[in-house]
Amino acid sequence: MLRSVDQDDSPPTVGIVGAGQLARMTYQAAIPLGLRTRVLATAADESAALVARDLTLGAPTCYQALEELASMCDVLTFDHELVEVTQLEALEAAGHRVRPSAATVGLAQNKLRQREELGALGLPVPAFQALGGPADLLGFANQQGWPVVVKAIRGGYDGRGVWVVNTPTEGVALLDRLGAHQELLVETWVPIERELAILVVRRPAGQTVVYPLVETVQVAGICREVLAPAPVAPKLAEQAKELALRVAAASSVVGVLAVELFETGGRLVINELAARPHNSGHYSIEGCISSQFENHLRAVLDWPLGETDLRAPAVATVNLLGGPNPVDLGRQLPRALAVPGAHVHLYGKGYRPGRKLGHVTALGADRGQAQSLARRAAELLVEPARS
Amino acid sequence: MLRSVDQDDSPPTVGIVGAGQLARMTYQAAIPLGLRTRVLATAADESAALVARDLTLGAPTCYQALEELASMCDVLTFDHELVEVTQLEALEAAGHRVRPSAATVGLAQNKLRQREELGALGLPVPAFQALGGPADLLGFANQQGWPVVVKAIRGGYDGRGVWVVNTPTEGVALLDRLGAHQELLVETWVPIERELAILVVRRPAGQTVVYPLVETVQVAGICREVLAPAPVAPKLAEQAKELALRVAAASSVVGVLAVELFETGGRLVINELAARPHNSGHYSIEGCISSQFENHLRAVLDWPLGETDLRAPAVATVNLLGGPNPVDLGRQLPRALAVPGAHVHLYGKGYRPGRKLGHVTALGADRGQAQSLARRAAELLVEPARS
Repeated sequence: MLRSVDQDDSPPTVGIVGAGQLARMTYQAAIPLGLRTRVLATAADESAALVARDLTLGAPTCYQALEELASMCDVLTFDHELVEVTQLEALEAAGHRVRPSAATVGLAQNKLRQREELGALGLPVPAFQALGGPADLLGFANQQGWPVVVKAIRGGYDGRGVWVVNTPTEGVALLDRLGAHQELLVETWVPIERELAILVVRRPAGQTVVYPLVETVQVAGICREVLAPAPVAPKLAEQAKELALRVAAASSVVGVLAVELFETGGRLVINELAARPHNSGHYSIEGCISSQFENHLRAVLDWPLGETDLRAPAVATVNLLGGPNPVDLGRQLPRALAVPGAHVHLYGKGYRPGRKLGHVTALGADRGQAQSLARRAAELLVEPARS
Repeated sequence: MLRSVDQDDSPPTVGIVGAGQLARMTYQAAIPLGLRTRVLATAADESAALVARDLTLGAPTCYQALEELASMCDVLTFDHELVEVTQLEALEAAGHRVRPSAATVGLAQNKLRQREELGALGLPVPAFQALGGPADLLGFANQQGWPVVVKAIRGGYDGRGVWVVNTPTEGVALLDRLGAHQELLVETWVPIERELAILVVRRPAGQTVVYPLVETVQVAGICREVLAPAPVAPKLAEQAKELALRVAAASSVVGVLAVELFETGGRLVINELAARPHNSGHYSIEGCISSQFENHLRAVLDWPLGETDLRAPAVATVNLLGGPNPVDLGRQLPRALAVPGAHVHLYGKGYRPGRKLGHVTALGADRGQAQSLARRAAELLVEPARS
C-alpha cells in the first residue's frame, strides 16, 4: 500500500490529519482533481477511512504518525484542530509543508489569542478577559454587567466548553466545578439576533475568495441548519465579507477559514475561527460553483481558487444529528431520496445521540422552499419509520 | 482488507466490474450515499483502483474473480461491457444480483441483436443485415444503395469496428482484410445532421427517469464534446424521450441506459445502446440535479431515482483526449483551474494518443458561453504550455 512521493512526481499527494466527515468530503473532492490523498486515521472505521484508499493509522497527536504521513505527502492539511502545535512546528522545521501553518492552527485552537489578535486589529470581538479565578470573573462581570459567558480557551466545540453565568453564585460554583486545570476566559454576553458564518479561502500566492454570508441555526450549541444567503441587509453582508478578508490576511491562513459571527443590534461580533473546511460550508457542495472542499485543496496546493457564487437563489443544509433513539440512516435513506432535489450526505458513522451523522442540502427558488425540502428529507432520515 | 457482507447488514455494498473512469466517478457518487463500493480491477493503477478502498484484483472475464466479488457485495454492476454473458448468467443462477442483468448486457454487447430487437418493436434503426461474406455485402448495397457501413457486431467503440464502404471493390478488400473471425453486419449509410444521445435510468420497481437529449460532437468516431440540451426542435426532443423510455422498458434495463442517435432528415435513427453510465452523461455531474452516476447507483439498489433537470440553461462537456504529444495533465491543471466555472475531472490515467484522460464541464447562460469556457480549460490542459 505504501508508496513514495518520489515514485512519480505528479499528481501531488495531499495528507489529511484526521479522518472525520470533513476528511471524507475532502477525499471526494480530490478525486476529480486527480490528486492522491492519504488520510491519517486513528481507526480504520472512521468516516474518511471507510472510503480512502491510502491510510496511515495513528493518532493526530503522535509525532511519529505525522512524520510518517508527511514523508509520503507533498502537503499536510487537517480535518480538525485537535493537534499539538509544537509537533506541527517540528514538521515545518523538518521541511514539510503544513497548510494551514502551525501558527494559524495555534490561533484557531486558542479563543483567547483570537480575541486578543482580532481585537488588536480593531475587529469587533466581545469584551473579554483571561480568567485566573473567581475574583477575575466577579470583577469583569461587575464592570461589564451580568450575564457573562465563560469559555474554555481550548478544545470546546458543538456547545461544549461554553457556560452562560447569570449571578456571582453561579460563577463561583462553575469555576469550582471546572477546577484549575482548564484555561478559561470570560466575555460579555451578547444578545444574539442571529448566528452567522462566512468562509474565506486563501492560497499562499495571495488569492482569496469569500463564500456568501450564511445564517447558522444552532440548537443547544450545535448547528442544526445552514441557510444561504443569510437574510441580512446587504450592508451587513458586505461588512462580513470585508471582515473575513481582514481576518484571513491577518492570520495568514492557507485553505478555508471559517469566521463565526453574531448579529447583535444590527452589527457583527466575531465569535470564533476555524482554520479548515467547516460545517457551515457543506451547503457549498451542491450550492456553489466550487465547494469549500475543492477550494481547500486548491488553496493548500497553491492552485487558482474557484468561484464561490451560489448556484440557486437559496440553499439550505440540515444536519442529521443522532436523536434520543438509535436510527439506521442507511435503511431510512430510500425514503429520503424520494424527496425531490434533496441531496443526502451520510458520513458512515455509527449512531450516538447528538452525533453529526450526515447532512441534507436542497436548492430552492427561495429560502422557504430550500429549507422545507431539506427538512423533509432530514426528518425522513432521522425519525423512526412508522410501519 | 476483505470483509464479509454479513459483518454488518447496512449499508449495502455495490461491486463494480471494471476500474475505468466510469467506475471512478461512480465511486465518487457512492461516498455521500454512505455506500460501500468494491471495485474489480485488472491492475492496481487503473483509474478507479487509484481511489477505491476496497479492491478485488482480477480480470472481468475471470469467473472466479467475479464470483469472489459477488460474494462480498449485495449487487454487481459494470464499468464496461467487456464481460462474458454466460458468466453473468452463472452468477445469476447462483443467486447473485447482477444489474443490469446478463440478458441486458448481452443485448448491449451485440449490435445485430439491438437492431433486430429494436426494429421488431417498430423503433427507427437503419436498414441492416448480418454479413456472411462479400456476396451479402454486395447484395445489400445494390439493394439499399452505396455507401454502406460495415460494423463489428461486438466490441467496437470509440470509432473502432466501423467502416464506411463506398464501392464494391472497397467492400471486398475490407472483408478480405478483416477475415472470417469477426462477426459483422452491414447497414445503410445515414447522412448524419447531428449525433445525439439520451440517457434513461430504470430501477427494478419500474420507476424511470430520462435526462435531457444532448448533442455529441464526434471527431474520428470519438466523442469530443457533449452539449446539453441538444439544439433540436422540441418535438424531436420529445420523440427521443419516448423512444428512450420504450427501449428501457423493452430491454428491462436496470441502471443507466444510453441511447445513441443520429438526426437525419429531421428524424431520429438509433445508432447503438450502452447499458451503463456513459460518456455522453458526464455533464450531469455538475449540470443536472442528480448525476448519472448517483442515479445508476440508486437504480441498481432499487432506490428512488433523483431529478434529471438541468441546473443551468446550457451545459458543455469537453473530453480531454491524449494528443500527438505527451502532456502531463496534473502539471497543466492549475492553468485550467484559472478559467472561471470550469469543472475539471482527471481520471488518473497515463497519457496515450487518443486516450480519454479526463473531461471539463462548464455551465452557462447559453450554449456558446458554456462551450467556450469548457473548451478554454480543456485547451489549457491538453496543449503543451508555451513557456
